[in-house]
Amino acid sequence: MLDNGMILVDRDCRSYGTLIRAERVLHDQQSPYQRIMVVETENLGRVLMLDGIFNVSPVMEAHYHEPMAHIPVAMAQTPERCLIIGGGDFGVAHHLIKHEGLRRITLCELDPEILTVCRRYFPQWAACESDRRLEVRVGDGLAYLRDADSDSLDLIIVDSTDPYLGAGNVLISNRFYRHAVRALRPGGVLMQIVADFLFYRRVWAEVLPRATRHFDSVSPLFLPIPFYATGNWGFLLAGKAHDHWSPDRISTAFLNGIGGVETLTAERVRGWFSLPPYVAGEIGGLLP
Amino acid sequence: MLDNGMILVDRDCRSYGTLIRAERVLHDQQSPYQRIMVVETENLGRVLMLDGIFNVSPVMEAHYHEPMAHIPVAMAQTPERCLIIGGGDFGVAHHLIKHEGLRRITLCELDPEILTVCRRYFPQWAACESDRRLEVRVGDGLAYLRDADSDSLDLIIVDSTDPYLGAGNVLISNRFYRHAVRALRPGGVLMQIVADFLFYRRVWAEVLPRATRHFDSVSPLFLPIPFYATGNWGFLLAGKAHDHWSPDRISTAFLNGIGGVETLTAERVRGWFSLPPYVAGEIGGLLP
Repeated sequence: MLDNGMILVDRDCRSYGTLIRAERVLHDQQSPYQRIMVVETENLGRVLMLDGIFNVSPVMEAHYHEPMAHIPVAMAQTPERCLIIGGGDFGVAHHLIKHEGLRRITLCELDPEILTVCRRYFPQWAACESDRRLEVRVGDGLAYLRDADSDSLDLIIVDSTDPYLGAGNVLISNRFYRHAVRALRPGGVLMQIVADFLFYRRVWAEVLPRATRHFDSVSPLFLPIPFYATGNWGFLLAGKAHDHWSPDRISTAFLNGIGGVETLTAERVRGWFSLPPYVAGEIGGLLP
Repeated sequence: MLDNGMILVDRDCRSYGTLIRAERVLHDQQSPYQRIMVVETENLGRVLMLDGIFNVSPVMEAHYHEPMAHIPVAMAQTPERCLIIGGGDFGVAHHLIKHEGLRRITLCELDPEILTVCRRYFPQWAACESDRRLEVRVGDGLAYLRDADSDSLDLIIVDSTDPYLGAGNVLISNRFYRHAVRALRPGGVLMQIVADFLFYRRVWAEVLPRATRHFDSVSPLFLPIPFYATGNWGFLLAGKAHDHWSPDRISTAFLNGIGGVETLTAERVRGWFSLPPYVAGEIGGLLP
């Protein structure tokens, strides 16, 4: 905490940092896993910060949660059973329950304190707990996957803290991808937050060879996430034995069918699948 | 300048700011128009800052200059004569000269000190001055337009400081648009930096009714500009008596023909033309 309520939010880069001015600190706690802060701001709304990193706020949540939820549902061949790893702010689940075809959504969050804090400060997302299809578990996502039956999931959505840092690191490991592929049904899909490309190209150079070793279809997506460093962030979308892997699955009809979508259009999503040449030149050769 | 070489870069919002760590300050000058700084950084390269606002760096310049240059060339029906208003870092001109069909490019920069500083610290862009089609003038862009012959331009590219602040303000005025339309040939195009939508929706609510009063075709574009606040920035593309107004004009063949393009693909550009529903809901009704 600096003067005047300014909080330094560092993004793992020597030359660039962001500041948030908190009008009030609503919550500040060190859990066994991370420091959890909720602050009230004037322009960004209520902000959840984990270990001093901007995580989410109502002002930008749809930019992050809508792609995380709706893109994998559209891509999966039979989107019925979904596992969310992390996602303890309930944001992804809040958008997922709009899909009536989903029969079961399991949210597996490592840190129970996140659930408690978000139920209190972000009730608009946690309200999805009243949906009977949602089951909330506290525990390790990799352990859950390891114990899951083969071919038992259609979607795995990894909504973790930055996977190149600390606890999230296991979620981009070979071990994780091996268990994920085993647990997915043919036609199933993994969606995972990875990293921005400008600052973290080394992460992409590590992740893609691993992902392509285990999955038949692999697409990096780069899309705008306001208030994440550089404003663009990269996601990994990967499919197991998928017959029709194409961004055209996220059609206008699909999006209109969800209702109330704020940030996605079919054209925008197709753009996110299209690697700019400076990215394709570096990692395009690592793709299937 | 703060401790440890950190420089606060403010973005006109109470709750959010960015910091840049300068390894060295290469240049710091108050011109009659603005404070011009050039700093060396580790991760962002050499950064030009105007009045304390991050302007451009070689790390991200293509994200900004390529759309500014190539999109209006593709959209204009006969892209031959171009006026750049501002653009004193020579970045837009550097990309424009790749288009052999352009016969004349006039760069009209208000602040001569910008030209001097950028020739010295960003010679990779200023090298375009050796192209005989480029004419550099010092002066007021609006006055240049006012004196320009009718139907004498095909492209007007406004690469100014933020037009909702200070000196740039005239560049989103009715007077400016009236002169711009008069100076453009039928089929001509204006491309102009405006503002991010999340923080500056009020600017869009002002600009669009003005632009649509003067131009027949108006498209806001929202696209990723790393290190600009929120990471996405909005541009206005407007056409005079344009017969075939469509993002499909920025085709893969067109982009391949330029050579060396780093940030554009046809799919990405189509995505930038597609307003996300939360934007369309607010300003879609202001469009033609």
